[in-house]
Amino acid sequence: MGFSITLPDGSKREFDQAITIGELAHGISTSLGKAALAGKVDGKLQPVDFELNQDAQVAIITDKDEEGLAVLRATVAFVFEAVAKKAYPELHFGEHAADDDGFFVDTDKENQIKISELPQLENAVKKAVKAGEKIESVILPKAELADRYQDDPFKLELLKEENEEVHAYKLGDFVDFGFEALLPNTGKIKQFKLLSVAGAYWQGQSSNPMLQRISGTAFFKKADLDADIKRREEIKERDHRTIGRDLDLFFVDPKVGAGLPYWMPKGATIRRVVERYIIDKEVADGYQHVYTPVLMNVDAYKTSGHWAHYRDDMFPPMDMGDGEMLELRPMNCPSHIQIYKHHIRSYRELPIRIAELGMMHRYEKSGALSGLQRVREMTLNDGHTFVTLDQVQEEFSKILKLIMEVYKDFDITDYYFRLSYRDPKNTEKYFANDEMWERSQSMLKKAMDDMGLDYVEAEGEAAFYGPKLDIQTKTALGADETMSTIQLDFMLPERFNLSYVGQDGEEHRPVMIHRGIVGTMERFIAYLIEIYKGAFPTWLAPVQVEVIPVNLDAHSEYAKKVRDELNKQGFRAEADLRNEKLGYKIRESQTQKVPYTLVLGDKEMEANNVNVRRYGTEEEVAKSFDEFLSEIKQDVKSYSRND
Amino acid sequence: MGFSITLPDGSKREFDQAITIGELAHGISTSLGKAALAGKVDGKLQPVDFELNQDAQVAIITDKDEEGLAVLRATVAFVFEAVAKKAYPELHFGEHAADDDGFFVDTDKENQIKISELPQLENAVKKAVKAGEKIESVILPKAELADRYQDDPFKLELLKEENEEVHAYKLGDFVDFGFEALLPNTGKIKQFKLLSVAGAYWQGQSSNPMLQRISGTAFFKKADLDADIKRREEIKERDHRTIGRDLDLFFVDPKVGAGLPYWMPKGATIRRVVERYIIDKEVADGYQHVYTPVLMNVDAYKTSGHWAHYRDDMFPPMDMGDGEMLELRPMNCPSHIQIYKHHIRSYRELPIRIAELGMMHRYEKSGALSGLQRVREMTLNDGHTFVTLDQVQEEFSKILKLIMEVYKDFDITDYYFRLSYRDPKNTEKYFANDEMWERSQSMLKKAMDDMGLDYVEAEGEAAFYGPKLDIQTKTALGADETMSTIQLDFMLPERFNLSYVGQDGEEHRPVMIHRGIVGTMERFIAYLIEIYKGAFPTWLAPVQVEVIPVNLDAHSEYAKKVRDELNKQGFRAEADLRNEKLGYKIRESQTQKVPYTLVLGDKEMEANNVNVRRYGTEEEVAKSFDEFLSEIKQDVKSYSRND
Repeated sequence: MGFSITLPDGSKREFDQAITIGELAHGISTSLGKAALAGKVDGKLQPVDFELNQDAQVAIITDKDEEGLAVLRATVAFVFEAVAKKAYPELHFGEHAADDDGFFVDTDKENQIKISELPQLENAVKKAVKAGEKIESVILPKAELADRYQDDPFKLELLKEENEEVHAYKLGDFVDFGFEALLPNTGKIKQFKLLSVAGAYWQGQSSNPMLQRISGTAFFKKADLDADIKRREEIKERDHRTIGRDLDLFFVDPKVGAGLPYWMPKGATIRRVVERYIIDKEVADGYQHVYTPVLMNVDAYKTSGHWAHYRDDMFPPMDMGDGEMLELRPMNCPSHIQIYKHHIRSYRELPIRIAELGMMHRYEKSGALSGLQRVREMTLNDGHTFVTLDQVQEEFSKILKLIMEVYKDFDITDYYFRLSYRDPKNTEKYFANDEMWERSQSMLKKAMDDMGLDYVEAEGEAAFYGPKLDIQTKTALGADETMSTIQLDFMLPERFNLSYVGQDGEEHRPVMIHRGIVGTMERFIAYLIEIYKGAFPTWLAPVQVEVIPVNLDAHSEYAKKVRDELNKQGFRAEADLRNEKLGYKIRESQTQKVPYTLVLGDKEMEANNVNVRRYGTEEEVAKSFDEFLSEIKQDVKSYSRND
Repeated sequence: MGFSITLPDGSKREFDQAITIGELAHGISTSLGKAALAGKVDGKLQPVDFELNQDAQVAIITDKDEEGLAVLRATVAFVFEAVAKKAYPELHFGEHAADDDGFFVDTDKENQIKISELPQLENAVKKAVKAGEKIESVILPKAELADRYQDDPFKLELLKEENEEVHAYKLGDFVDFGFEALLPNTGKIKQFKLLSVAGAYWQGQSSNPMLQRISGTAFFKKADLDADIKRREEIKERDHRTIGRDLDLFFVDPKVGAGLPYWMPKGATIRRVVERYIIDKEVADGYQHVYTPVLMNVDAYKTSGHWAHYRDDMFPPMDMGDGEMLELRPMNCPSHIQIYKHHIRSYRELPIRIAELGMMHRYEKSGALSGLQRVREMTLNDGHTFVTLDQVQEEFSKILKLIMEVYKDFDITDYYFRLSYRDPKNTEKYFANDEMWERSQSMLKKAMDDMGLDYVEAEGEAAFYGPKLDIQTKTALGADETMSTIQLDFMLPERFNLSYVGQDGEEHRPVMIHRGIVGTMERFIAYLIEIYKGAFPTWLAPVQVEVIPVNLDAHSEYAKKVRDELNKQGFRAEADLRNEKLGYKIRESQTQKVPYTLVLGDKEMEANNVNVRRYGTEEEVAKSFDEFLSEIKQDVKSYSRND
């Protein structure tokens, strides 16, 4: 009846009788025994008092292991529950979790915890930590727990997911379940912080009641906690939702439509500048811009394959009568195919480049929606070029060159290239045309090499319908995001029976290239808000110049004249003629991150001068109006870059 | 058993025995007897051999009466059927009709009549006219006709609408019904013409099979027929659908979506120029442009009243789960109300002017859809201003001034003003606020008078929610159309509980003004196509300059240089470098109505000159490239007006 424990290094230890994880650790070394926070038994986290009594793979978890943080954080969540229950005996708990990003505990709304009460609760947890109380790991019959929670609908619901024997934890009188491993004693908790109170739907579904979510985090070292808190502040400061509200750029109101943003005048101005910029850029590069309907007969999506494979992400179809079923489009490709197919095409016309700011609708779960970042209605900077196979490399290079130019103008510098091929060991999983795959993959690679660009190669990451290049940017919050994409498509031309008449007078099949430069307006502007922290370069700023008279009576006329002249010259200038103090107006212009604040008093008025304060600097510089005019002209024209 | 016939002048004639309409006419005068084409008996058209045998009001119809034309045209339709049936014995007929605009006969598609066969059929009708065959008016039992048409599903269907005794007409063996009065003899037919063959759904429903519709017209005098044919050619020449196809501006394909236009690159360019123009104009005039979602929770339309009163014109709602029902918006007002309501508003901010190129969806019956004119998806140049009651007059004048400026730039000159008030005798039918109605109506009137404008006053034509001004234009085809509108709305601010904080610190209700300047992009551009006959002024033309080298080898480089320089300067220039003859290229540039065609040969190349041919002129003028550049700059800047 002996058994054997295999450690991560492969070494085995034999035992005749049951021992706990803690005892195993002690047996290996005293220091490991002290450091042990939990164990991983056959891949599952267990507390240190878990009994080993049969063959198993075991790893001792210490604060050096990633899992150590999760155990620590889950323990803080549990202790928080215990002290909160003591403070608010009526409180009920929903779900709880601990992960890379911290921990949370959901509580019911009826017994609301205010954000102002978090410090008290934090102190209560600290007290428990100091007291070094035992956290007991227990196995309880489901029925006993059901009895205990008879007045708690959330716990009863969660209990349904458990086995007959429920693994629970006890701290004094307090009992809860649904944790993997916890630390054996509150004294082992180190650095922690309660961070926020927010709303969260019960079990993540917006049709369920809204609960409160108390979030926090924990670390083993103070330096790590401090760094994390700083990172969170940074994130908050850059969060496009916060900046969007502070600068009055947009809002979303789930009561009028979940995931459907309203662009306020200032946000709309930024979007309009971006839209005109990208259209002009594309038209100059040989694209033909079109407008196509946001609705299409469902049959087109049956032909394209979206109906079969993408339907969950689509809006419900609408029955129009006359046998017509319309669908809000989830993509623009079938629309641009209609444009291509509207004429017989000759090889002389290729490449044909169709582009559009195409509005699309995708069904995202309500819980996943977020500001401008995850929405249900979006307008994509979309384009499709139709080429012969021979033209793939040249067209690909041309698109990439355009993307690089756009990145330069928006000052996007943190990105890398990922070139995705089909899996050479599973070619049967992809659209069947070996020649197309082989030739086009090597053309893409050659194009990248010729342009001297570094890239990651990803075998097996291509789409079913063709190889692609993704350009991955880092958002200000550190997340990896596909900003631009160039995707070859051999399938849709086949499915929609696209053709061109070749030099030989015969019909040939074109290759279609899907390409996006800045993605959707929604996501791109969320991205810009975050990288610029709301301080847009002059060419994008919704208000470029704030004109402030020193004295309303004396200088308003001059202020209006300056404003009107700037507007006439095509700039976006405002005059602040409210009955407020000068200092207040200047501060507000800074808070609103207006690139230029002009303060106009007697001296300026007499000399036809302006006193210029550039956003982000403290100094004021007097210059002639004409001098300022050429300065801001140059600023806008250069996209605020100094090169 | 005598009876009395009352004539249109009130005179009565007494009769003892039945007489026909023809005999009645003869009895009045020999010339009237000869001129009689039919009679109107108690308001109903009857043939000349119709028997009068009881008291009745009777008018003799001659070629001087409007109804005479309808009788003539119906007769041509009937004779056409008879000769067509002889030529194609398998032919079946659907509906037929004759009216102000001519006549038509629907025939089945299986036995298709080609447009090239119309002259033959026209000749066969002429032959019948020459032969002077009798057209007999007969009453036949329904059963007999049902038997006769046993293989003709259309006629059997039409027969269902008839009484047991069916009034039919016979020409030799041929029989048909569903006519009012026909002429008694083919010899009475004068001038006629078969005009076209087109598709038409059986009984006008797009879920029914498509039939062929053969249309024609007829007159009593050759001059009238000639004038009508000329008018039809003019209409065809201006028809935005024809021009739209010839210039490749847009298309609609009911298979991918009825009433959902696709804007081809050239049409999209015109639209983009118009959109940017109108946005810039509005922004300069103090409007704040926004983007708001095309979808909204159905609850908003319940609040606005659209759901109760306008639902038939709305798209079907979509169930999004989570209890959310979304609706494609039929109007933008509730969206702009969201923008207004997003902040607490102060009297200091008013007027607040919100504008948008707002996409909307309205359910139009499939039969009513037409090109860009009647569509289901449209983008409206929409705006809403929120004012105090005191500001109504000034704001109204400001909007009107803006409209007049826009009309000038688009060269819209044929229009009139219609000011609509509530009905003073039925004030209870309108939104209840007498002060608002009285004050605002007189402010609108005063504004018009102060601006020295003529206008039509229409009592009782106001909307339920407020008085309005409509600006009615004439389309190129002569139809009256509301181009612009300024509508006061007292109701929506109430329903959505809008307010602003007044100088007194209290909440007040603003007045909302709905205003449209150029209407929807779709209808406006259809209108522009028709008024310009596709020859757009330079600032709107999709291609402004066509550059044509005399010799491809010798002058292509210079042509490209000229084109590139023009494009760089912000113009839309193309170079025709195809391997085609010079004359062909010049003609095509004219057909495409390109404002400037530049022909470049040795002489031009040496002197850095261009040879300019202005659209619509025959002359070519040589000038330096710089001279041309300043000419076209001035042309675009002045909206091609000479003032």
